[in-house]
Amino acid sequence: MKLYSWGAAPNPRRVLIYMAEKGIEIPVAEAGGGAQLTDDYLARYDGRIVPMLELDDGTQIGEAMAICRYLEEAYPAPPLFGVNRRDRAMVDMWERRAETEGFAGVAEVFRNSTPAFAGRGLPGFAEPIEQIPALVERGRKRLARFYGRIERQLADNRFIAGSRFSVADITALCIVDFATKGAKVGLPEDHTNARSWHAEVSARPSIAG
Amino acid sequence: MKLYSWGAAPNPRRVLIYMAEKGIEIPVAEAGGGAQLTDDYLARYDGRIVPMLELDDGTQIGEAMAICRYLEEAYPAPPLFGVNRRDRAMVDMWERRAETEGFAGVAEVFRNSTPAFAGRGLPGFAEPIEQIPALVERGRKRLARFYGRIERQLADNRFIAGSRFSVADITALCIVDFATKGAKVGLPEDHTNARSWHAEVSARPSIAG
Repeated sequence: MKLYSWGAAPNPRRVLIYMAEKGIEIPVAEAGGGAQLTDDYLARYDGRIVPMLELDDGTQIGEAMAICRYLEEAYPAPPLFGVNRRDRAMVDMWERRAETEGFAGVAEVFRNSTPAFAGRGLPGFAEPIEQIPALVERGRKRLARFYGRIERQLADNRFIAGSRFSVADITALCIVDFATKGAKVGLPEDHTNARSWHAEVSARPSIAG
Repeated sequence: MKLYSWGAAPNPRRVLIYMAEKGIEIPVAEAGGGAQLTDDYLARYDGRIVPMLELDDGTQIGEAMAICRYLEEAYPAPPLFGVNRRDRAMVDMWERRAETEGFAGVAEVFRNSTPAFAGRGLPGFAEPIEQIPALVERGRKRLARFYGRIERQLADNRFIAGSRFSVADITALCIVDFATKGAKVGLPEDHTNARSWHAEVSARPSIAG
């Protein structure tokens, strides 16, 4: 197996944190060169995004959470997708919610406002995709809504999906860090529950390094 | 348990088709009235979208695929999330790919071009979200890319994730039908593999009714 990653990009980071939580060691190949994926990688994987896990038989698994779930079956401890049926549903719901609300929001801000991504308003396209400036403001609204939701959720829960650390925390953390650094939209000062959660999870060995 | 749905909306449709494939009978409540979700529903569920599965203890499970996965544990036959580790990864990857590429694309076209959705450019918001006309064209590009991918995938595979019908087919079918009816972007004539697949899955009793 080999995992293809790209510098500090947020999607492969989800898989790398997941692996560190489990103590999983898989060779990691760098798929990027500067601000682009390399031609070699783009020729290898028609998904044209990272991360991608390539199995020894050549099977390519894309999508960060599909990769983590694939690994979960071989490395069940500690469980990061929930511990019982209801809990697994909460993890899956919050992880997907983080992806469709939070990740989509920060990606809209980042991709449509970053000069180095001019002509690359969407990932994965070979053809130019122009930036849409109006999406920067809309992306901020999506992100703000997601921040509000996790703030309320974390008032009664230590972690995003309940009482245990899970992949939902990993996705949410990567969103917050990407938004803070890449889109200049950090957690608001008054989101005290979310800020405490962020400080706690950031101190985990898998994340603090 | 009760499932909240909304007319012919594509996301709850994924769950309804899934239930029909399994023969699962759960009471379904209508959460919409005309072109809006009802005030009762919006007060009940702060996610402000459909579908939502409410358990007897009040637990609310949102996100179509989190609901289906929750049901899968109680109703494992026939398996719709894959039959072995590699197969499960392919189903999860293609289902997520369909959601992030196909669904996002058709939603951008539909939400930003449909007059009845003026001020509702994104689902789930209480505040107005203005339509962004430039997203209609970008959404078409995303959708075209997704169509191209399933066309290539279906050249060698009977179903979206391989040789068996799965939730990836359900999501892809709902995207194609929503795009055809709601966004006037059907499968291109020359996408013969995808068109054959669409005809085959549309004839299933769970879909043809």
